[in-house]
Amino acid sequence: MSEPFRIGLLGHGTIGGAFDELLLERTEAVQAVTGRRPEIAGILTRSRGDFDDILGRSDLIVELIGGLEPAREYVLRAMAAGKHVVTANKQLLSQHGDELWDAAREHGVQLRFEASVAGVVPVVRVLSESLAAAHVDRIHGIVNGTTNYILSEMASRGCSYAEALADAQQLGYAEADPSEDVNGKDAAAKMAILARLAFGAAVTLSDVSYEGIEHLTADDLAYARELGLSLKLIGTAERTGEGISVRVHPVFLYGSHPLASVNGPFNAVTIESEAITEVTLSGPGAGGSQTASAVLGDVVSAMIPPPSLPGAVHRLPIVTDVTSAFYLHLEVADRPGVLAQIAERLGLQGASVKSVVQRGLGENARLVMVVHPILESRFFAAVDLIGHLDFMRSPPRAIRVIEEEF
Amino acid sequence: MSEPFRIGLLGHGTIGGAFDELLLERTEAVQAVTGRRPEIAGILTRSRGDFDDILGRSDLIVELIGGLEPAREYVLRAMAAGKHVVTANKQLLSQHGDELWDAAREHGVQLRFEASVAGVVPVVRVLSESLAAAHVDRIHGIVNGTTNYILSEMASRGCSYAEALADAQQLGYAEADPSEDVNGKDAAAKMAILARLAFGAAVTLSDVSYEGIEHLTADDLAYARELGLSLKLIGTAERTGEGISVRVHPVFLYGSHPLASVNGPFNAVTIESEAITEVTLSGPGAGGSQTASAVLGDVVSAMIPPPSLPGAVHRLPIVTDVTSAFYLHLEVADRPGVLAQIAERLGLQGASVKSVVQRGLGENARLVMVVHPILESRFFAAVDLIGHLDFMRSPPRAIRVIEEEF
Repeated sequence: MSEPFRIGLLGHGTIGGAFDELLLERTEAVQAVTGRRPEIAGILTRSRGDFDDILGRSDLIVELIGGLEPAREYVLRAMAAGKHVVTANKQLLSQHGDELWDAAREHGVQLRFEASVAGVVPVVRVLSESLAAAHVDRIHGIVNGTTNYILSEMASRGCSYAEALADAQQLGYAEADPSEDVNGKDAAAKMAILARLAFGAAVTLSDVSYEGIEHLTADDLAYARELGLSLKLIGTAERTGEGISVRVHPVFLYGSHPLASVNGPFNAVTIESEAITEVTLSGPGAGGSQTASAVLGDVVSAMIPPPSLPGAVHRLPIVTDVTSAFYLHLEVADRPGVLAQIAERLGLQGASVKSVVQRGLGENARLVMVVHPILESRFFAAVDLIGHLDFMRSPPRAIRVIEEEF
Repeated sequence: MSEPFRIGLLGHGTIGGAFDELLLERTEAVQAVTGRRPEIAGILTRSRGDFDDILGRSDLIVELIGGLEPAREYVLRAMAAGKHVVTANKQLLSQHGDELWDAAREHGVQLRFEASVAGVVPVVRVLSESLAAAHVDRIHGIVNGTTNYILSEMASRGCSYAEALADAQQLGYAEADPSEDVNGKDAAAKMAILARLAFGAAVTLSDVSYEGIEHLTADDLAYARELGLSLKLIGTAERTGEGISVRVHPVFLYGSHPLASVNGPFNAVTIESEAITEVTLSGPGAGGSQTASAVLGDVVSAMIPPPSLPGAVHRLPIVTDVTSAFYLHLEVADRPGVLAQIAERLGLQGASVKSVVQRGLGENARLVMVVHPILESRFFAAVDLIGHLDFMRSPPRAIRVIEEEF
């Protein structure tokens, strides 16, 4: 049996705690993929643990303290000691990127940071691996969930900035001091990191111009709707002439833009290049377990060069009868009692109707309904019964429906 | 100087030709990232080249012939000779996956296949690397661009299946014989590949139940709109009880589902797990240059273990004055000549108005407009002029607008 893979964990707040828990839960899976069993070698918090001791006992350091110091010192010392580093620290990367990447190259270690931008949305990996040799022209990103939640609320409820911010704070989508979120600085730090990856250029936070959402009014959002626009805080990194521009501003998007429909505390990034046209990645922007999941993905990658997956294969039974909601389209004779007879057949199989539309008269009479999730075999048994009713003018038509879960 | 990295290219049709061209264009970039200069060692087509000769001169084989044989034989022989393989062949992977991955493991080579599912949308990498140790519960995918284009046209224009198919064929979104696209078999092969990656289970095409879109009517789409639903051909791979279910069906989605707004010849995949909630990846599903770009990303990854990017850094000038479209909100006095004076100030700076809304009377009069893209410095110069006009009741408010490019 091979040696365990020892992880030194710096920080045990929301994300650190979630990572600790997730690693425990996924230990077997990580071992199956990498061949080594991961274990926490030590945890450093303000009140416990000694950095040098933990470093000495670790193969890799996960830095989740945040802020510039002592995070910077710990990360540099870990790399100097030949340890890989996984971090979620956007401040550090956007302000001391050159120093950190130089150190990683010098010491031949991996520095991974998926969780620093857009949580579990895998934009760092896609830019640095899938598109490593691509010529990226432009990135647009919604990279701050707090401001996206506030703008979504202002748009959908017509409320003021102050009201939406208060709601966001109550729901935990905004911090007690939200200033770096709402003034655009948090998004600017993330765009500096993405611009560096996309263009291989030394971009730091001080190169990014930014503007926040504090001055936006419900009025702007109301007019925007009339013009077919939706309002987002957008980070842009693009090649322009002989240089690049990296900036964060409130921006209106036309309805068909892939970022226009990203609402609530979500993040999304579009990457444009001539060869790929445009790729969009989206998902939850923050949250302890989501960020922890991004950190774990980086840890797994640092444990091994990517294998030619899939590895060992399980035998899982293939299930053919599953549960689904359904749309049911019935062309019926226009006479009393039709709906009752249909409802009875559905009820016999345990199917219940969510919504129904009745249309047409005489030879055009139809019943179109959505049925709540039910085992498919039972639904089709009901449809078979309905198909034999004497008032049916044609065979029933059924189409599956995916219900919203969020 | 290190040895060049030699690529044997099997197939030189649309994708093979686009890959050949893209590699030439990105040679320097690949060398910068990997340290080795890529070159085509030989090209095999039906009329030229000898497989054994090309294999002997290559470090990696790119298989873009498609179909089962001789692609299967070539890929197996390449791996047996210790060469990495990059392929876009969904038929081969979905029907002979076990044999291929066993061979890759046995010979210690990489088998990469991003381009086999959803073109440049990086779902294979995200599942096999970012989420390698995650517990994926479910995948929903729009993985066939032809059918998505046809359904989008039926929905937006109210036309029949036959009409939409004919249009798709004329525009090159559907082949002359579209049967494997429209009957769901193409999507089923892709879902078998994704299910294998997501669940580490031996799933082959024969395990996937599928149904196509040929029987759908404009009528179903019209009712769907009334019910707030949009119709897509959806591939589903999910854990259910003690097993898994993999299937392809026409499915209705509620408007807020991330796949509901994916229209035209696009692909998109949502990946759900408890820890990550849900991540969505979307982009163009096919097209020579897009697929070639996915192949190139795999080639670059096979050339090196992923570096702790970014590598060498350029000094690119940071540009601060860029071009943008704008929304401009003006609270004005309600008197004649106001619009003319504003238009004149805009015109002085070269700004032209795309759309304008006039609202309110007397003390509530407003002009809200969208201005076509213009250098920001010129736009703000015009706004400054406008701000000094005597009929302005408050300072102008300007917000950037991203225009649609597709």
